[in-house]
Amino acid sequence: MKNNTLHNLNLVPFVSVDDMMKIVLEIGVENVLTGIAEYLDADFRRWESFDKTPRVASHSEAGVIELMPTSDGDVYGFKYVNGHPDNMKTGRQTVTAFGVLSEVETGYPVLLTEMTILTALRTAATSAMVAKYLAPKGARSMALIGNGAQSEFQALAFKSILGITDLRLYDIDPASTKKFMHNMADQGFAITACTTEQQAVEGADIITTATADKQYATILTDNMIGAGVHINAIGGDCPGKTELHRDILLRSDIFVEYTPQTRIEGEIQQMDADHPVTELWQVMTGQAPGRTDDRQITLFDGVGFAIEDFSALRYLRDQLERTGHFEDLDMIADPDDPRDLYGMVMRAKANQQE
Amino acid sequence: MKNNTLHNLNLVPFVSVDDMMKIVLEIGVENVLTGIAEYLDADFRRWESFDKTPRVASHSEAGVIELMPTSDGDVYGFKYVNGHPDNMKTGRQTVTAFGVLSEVETGYPVLLTEMTILTALRTAATSAMVAKYLAPKGARSMALIGNGAQSEFQALAFKSILGITDLRLYDIDPASTKKFMHNMADQGFAITACTTEQQAVEGADIITTATADKQYATILTDNMIGAGVHINAIGGDCPGKTELHRDILLRSDIFVEYTPQTRIEGEIQQMDADHPVTELWQVMTGQAPGRTDDRQITLFDGVGFAIEDFSALRYLRDQLERTGHFEDLDMIADPDDPRDLYGMVMRAKANQQE
Repeated sequence: MKNNTLHNLNLVPFVSVDDMMKIVLEIGVENVLTGIAEYLDADFRRWESFDKTPRVASHSEAGVIELMPTSDGDVYGFKYVNGHPDNMKTGRQTVTAFGVLSEVETGYPVLLTEMTILTALRTAATSAMVAKYLAPKGARSMALIGNGAQSEFQALAFKSILGITDLRLYDIDPASTKKFMHNMADQGFAITACTTEQQAVEGADIITTATADKQYATILTDNMIGAGVHINAIGGDCPGKTELHRDILLRSDIFVEYTPQTRIEGEIQQMDADHPVTELWQVMTGQAPGRTDDRQITLFDGVGFAIEDFSALRYLRDQLERTGHFEDLDMIADPDDPRDLYGMVMRAKANQQE
Repeated sequence: MKNNTLHNLNLVPFVSVDDMMKIVLEIGVENVLTGIAEYLDADFRRWESFDKTPRVASHSEAGVIELMPTSDGDVYGFKYVNGHPDNMKTGRQTVTAFGVLSEVETGYPVLLTEMTILTALRTAATSAMVAKYLAPKGARSMALIGNGAQSEFQALAFKSILGITDLRLYDIDPASTKKFMHNMADQGFAITACTTEQQAVEGADIITTATADKQYATILTDNMIGAGVHINAIGGDCPGKTELHRDILLRSDIFVEYTPQTRIEGEIQQMDADHPVTELWQVMTGQAPGRTDDRQITLFDGVGFAIEDFSALRYLRDQLERTGHFEDLDMIADPDDPRDLYGMVMRAKANQQE
């Protein structure tokens, strides 16, 4: 099934977990992050041309299954993603994802892919792409609070896209910090492992919070936040899950992906429904100011939006021909005569008997 | 990739078009139709336990791409389906589909499958299952107006589930009727090819309309419909597409899958928004009458609903172990340590170099 044509109508290219790892390794993690950031940048700049459907969620006691569709009029994409906090107990992932890209003109799927790894990449690329517009000029150091699955990707994205060289780590579980230091040992970072959040944020130009607690937590309190920093808060991303003390939000200029979604899922669920926020696409297209002075606290209240998955899917699709790491799935029924679906099935019988 | 375990967490069984044909041929078309009808019957009877989200449609000038999710609390399913009338011009299908079934408890997908063939099967099984409750007792003859891709499946479903033996065919294109007669030659039907709709409906106990015109059409007019028949109208299934004259609807007792959707997509889009209809699950659970006398005209205004896809997906899943016709897709990233997604990617590199 390997390496068939990208142009056979009834075959859909499929990128497995194994293929995704091969693609990332072949291109290089930092190159992939930079590449996705370019697609993200282009898509955020044409934000208004997207069909922005809210995600369609199916909730249960155990968790949630969501479909996140979007379209730019030429290409349609959706991501399937679940969130099941108790999955760890049975050796499963809390969050898994896969995605599909289709041609709007024909409705035919043109890509099916794993999206657990791809989502980790796009989340990090989004954070760094956003920081290009909001972080203080010449930022070199970043506090990284929460050293879980997303942390290495964040570090590499901020290195390749922003030039971050110094990392200050903290995690409630020292084993996570140790894992991070092991994984990033040869990446050219100056790394300081810290024993408190307070120590981690000292002197950092950028503060990234990527913790996994599903509750109203207070990873950062107001006294920890000095003037001029950029906060990249990506762990508070669903109702009932936040990371920052409310007072920090009151002192910050808050930037979001898509206001209606962030009001429900982001840090600003703690604030009044009319608390002022700026959508990032407005900053990127020059319609709203980003960072205006070097004492300003900027806050990216990131929750993840369908357009980011769309950008990542577009990027991935464009790497298929070059890398060849995909399989063709026989997913689209293709009778010679569309009126004769039954005959197609019966002819398969004849073919089997030959 | 063939015939791996159904119990490996990170592998998702995939039923290709080829596998679907093998499953249908191995089990037998009529057995599959009867089997799906049993799952449909069971699911319609517990209608109230389903999460009935409206379909999520992305419209464009060329057509529509839809996601149709539903859940019964234990299992979650969705279908991706497009509708692109102009696809024929480029050798593509007007409608293609694929579907996914997942465990609600974990959010993990447990089945990915082609659904073009499966949808044809579930549509026919639904029609025949519904007719069990509404058609006149002892019905043996059916007019089949529209002899396209759905027609053979309808004929076989009504044969195996209702005992229909006599078919009266009509299609605006005689080539379609000829194709049908060729495909059904050895199935034990008494078939009459007719030259008008009027001739086709004469003496028929059941009238099935399955035409493909995307416009307000009038396949049947009031004078053609005698007392006591059951009309199975499945071709009018989107806004702007109907098959029956309004006067027929005024004389009929109308039965629908899900009222809010059928008001938009079904024959009853021609009627007032409060025109009385009965939901089928109410008939099936004894909460509303179905056919009450032998002069009554019953009308199934079928548009296709997510729960029917769900039933078909459940049926298919239960055939996998028995038939072995599926592949395992490596679609779920499965790091040994969920916090170490990056390490998993890097270890893949080490494995490649070994």
